[in-house]
Amino acid sequence: MSNLKYISGGVTAAKGFLAGGIHCGIRRNHSKKDLALIFSQTECDAAAVYTLNKVKGSPIIVTGQHLLNGKARAVICNSGNANTCNADGEQKAKLMCDYVAEKLDISADDVIVASTGVIGQVLPIEPIRDGVQELVNALSDNGSGGAEQAIMTTDTREKEIAVEFEIGGTVCKMGGIAKGSGMIHPNMATMLGFLTTDVSINQSLLHEALLASTQKTFNMVSVDGDTSTNDMVSIMASGLAGNNRINAKGADFDTFCEALNAVNTFLSREIARDGEGATKLLECHVTQAADTQVARLVAKSVITSSLLKAAMFGADANWGRVLCAVGYADCELDVNKVDVSFESVGGIIAVCKNGAGIEFSEDLASKILAADEIKINVYLNSGYSEATAWGCDLTYDYVKINGDYRT
Amino acid sequence: MSNLKYISGGVTAAKGFLAGGIHCGIRRNHSKKDLALIFSQTECDAAAVYTLNKVKGSPIIVTGQHLLNGKARAVICNSGNANTCNADGEQKAKLMCDYVAEKLDISADDVIVASTGVIGQVLPIEPIRDGVQELVNALSDNGSGGAEQAIMTTDTREKEIAVEFEIGGTVCKMGGIAKGSGMIHPNMATMLGFLTTDVSINQSLLHEALLASTQKTFNMVSVDGDTSTNDMVSIMASGLAGNNRINAKGADFDTFCEALNAVNTFLSREIARDGEGATKLLECHVTQAADTQVARLVAKSVITSSLLKAAMFGADANWGRVLCAVGYADCELDVNKVDVSFESVGGIIAVCKNGAGIEFSEDLASKILAADEIKINVYLNSGYSEATAWGCDLTYDYVKINGDYRT
Repeated sequence: MSNLKYISGGVTAAKGFLAGGIHCGIRRNHSKKDLALIFSQTECDAAAVYTLNKVKGSPIIVTGQHLLNGKARAVICNSGNANTCNADGEQKAKLMCDYVAEKLDISADDVIVASTGVIGQVLPIEPIRDGVQELVNALSDNGSGGAEQAIMTTDTREKEIAVEFEIGGTVCKMGGIAKGSGMIHPNMATMLGFLTTDVSINQSLLHEALLASTQKTFNMVSVDGDTSTNDMVSIMASGLAGNNRINAKGADFDTFCEALNAVNTFLSREIARDGEGATKLLECHVTQAADTQVARLVAKSVITSSLLKAAMFGADANWGRVLCAVGYADCELDVNKVDVSFESVGGIIAVCKNGAGIEFSEDLASKILAADEIKINVYLNSGYSEATAWGCDLTYDYVKINGDYRT
Repeated sequence: MSNLKYISGGVTAAKGFLAGGIHCGIRRNHSKKDLALIFSQTECDAAAVYTLNKVKGSPIIVTGQHLLNGKARAVICNSGNANTCNADGEQKAKLMCDYVAEKLDISADDVIVASTGVIGQVLPIEPIRDGVQELVNALSDNGSGGAEQAIMTTDTREKEIAVEFEIGGTVCKMGGIAKGSGMIHPNMATMLGFLTTDVSINQSLLHEALLASTQKTFNMVSVDGDTSTNDMVSIMASGLAGNNRINAKGADFDTFCEALNAVNTFLSREIARDGEGATKLLECHVTQAADTQVARLVAKSVITSSLLKAAMFGADANWGRVLCAVGYADCELDVNKVDVSFESVGGIIAVCKNGAGIEFSEDLASKILAADEIKINVYLNSGYSEATAWGCDLTYDYVKINGDYRT
């Protein structure tokens, strides 16, 4: 996209959005924020996508009800507790919306609610009830970082981005924050993303764009193969940019989708890079596939292989593990046509041709795999479709983080 | 099965079978055997099941051809090299059969061939050619242990069993050896099992029994979710027990299947217990499922979850991870009916009822999870079917074994 520019501001970059985060007391550690708020000064078209796990967090269920009308004005999210598998979970998720709606003078139905943390522990609602005034006071037009910090768990880096682009000559903005995997009392690799834009766009197109982009970005990330109960990505579009409202597919919609992909791709890569215990970002790029579905299945299969992830940790050019994962991907393909290469800032090296090994320099391979971003290229030589998936290496620290006792 | 008795002898317990193993030089370590042979003094009905990976090891392809007629007399298997993804793989797998057939004066078509080790490295055939006479000399009626040692890779314990049972008043025997996951230069979690019996049984029933039993046993094991390219389980039935040949389903076939399940269940548990880096055997027992398929999918989903495996390593009663894995199992079920308990020699403790947490003693839970065999009971409360899956915990050593460089 030629006119896309990266800017600062995260979820408050787009016109009409404020954000903030505080420590309200769900977590015992006072220096870690645990409650985030994003607020739109006007009614937004809104859409969200949710985890496909049959066990769904209570906030997911409540948000689904609130977005039935395609409208929203705020996002409230706590970390430290997933509010999932609790008998009183829905009631408490609704209370979170009620508290914030009252203080902001909006309808509780216009609130998106999310939680991330340990599953199956009763959510203490008092810290949220008592903290919501302070939370509203913390709202500001440079509060994206505060909100991001409040949704982080064992994330080691903030994941925030904003972009500027033009639709029909009108300058528009879009921003997002996300959290990856891990907590102090570690549990699900819960993935959350909150996006804002000032583009004016028809809600069903907004939803369609979000679904399509999620397929290519967030759904192509794997840290450990465990699909969380609380995953959610939401977008609110305020319309304040002043562009001609996007009411149909065409060039403007394409521009919007491209901006959305840029934002989601950035956040997806950052989530994979910051996977629990990770030292390396892995990117599997599958090309020349018979169709997109095959490309995606193969890319995700490779990126999810524990054996490959451990090999990448050890900078071991063990391409047999790539081929093995290609072979058990749930789709039709001709394994005798598969080529594989490893790539990084250190260079690129072909290791497999037509499904069989070829001679290569182990020294060069080690050098390439020593980098902290590794690209695994899989050429299926069977068509013209491609896909990319992101993951991370499997390290001692993943075991440490997830083997530690919860309390 | 009332008349089942565990006996010694492994694959040589049944009448007519000899076995042995030697170091021929595929491995550099002279103290580790690397070539195994099992030989039947008479023609056997034989069957095998193979990996579903689309990338198949060359020995798998050759064995598939040799078993087209349902007959076999020998198994040859090397460790240290998988002979997979090599341009000359099939040719070398056939040579292995030729060498052993010549020395044993049998047809090469009657040889089952298998290999386990690194994928994509050319198999040196000379050590096998030059070692086959010594291998044949090593055959004996107490050589099962030697054959087992020769197929082991990073396995830390031998996996061998034999049982005695009666069919129509005739004493019959069945034995098996297997290898689990890991190598000195680690690669695929290749799983091999070789079974022998002196039961007389129709080949198509033999094949049917093996398929059915494998579904319930070996296919319910997961160490790391990576489906190998070289998995194979074969069975040879010499018929020398002298029972009335099993030519139809009925009581005798049922007895045979029960014995087969006992052998395969034992070997499957031993493979899981000896998973790479494992300190604990995990058994997930799913009951009250709507059908067997649901029970199997749920049991395997739970046992494969990296997060749960890491929690079990840490003796953490993090039941939310069990429910999460139940929730993403690829089948229909009502998550609000699910109960979960943890069990070991230390006792049993309920941790989740109707999909929600219940109060439990963390002290007792820790004590239960400190054992080296943990049972995770999942009650779906939706029917009368059940299934069991086996796995192991995820430990630092798994990362170490698989992150180390191949050479």
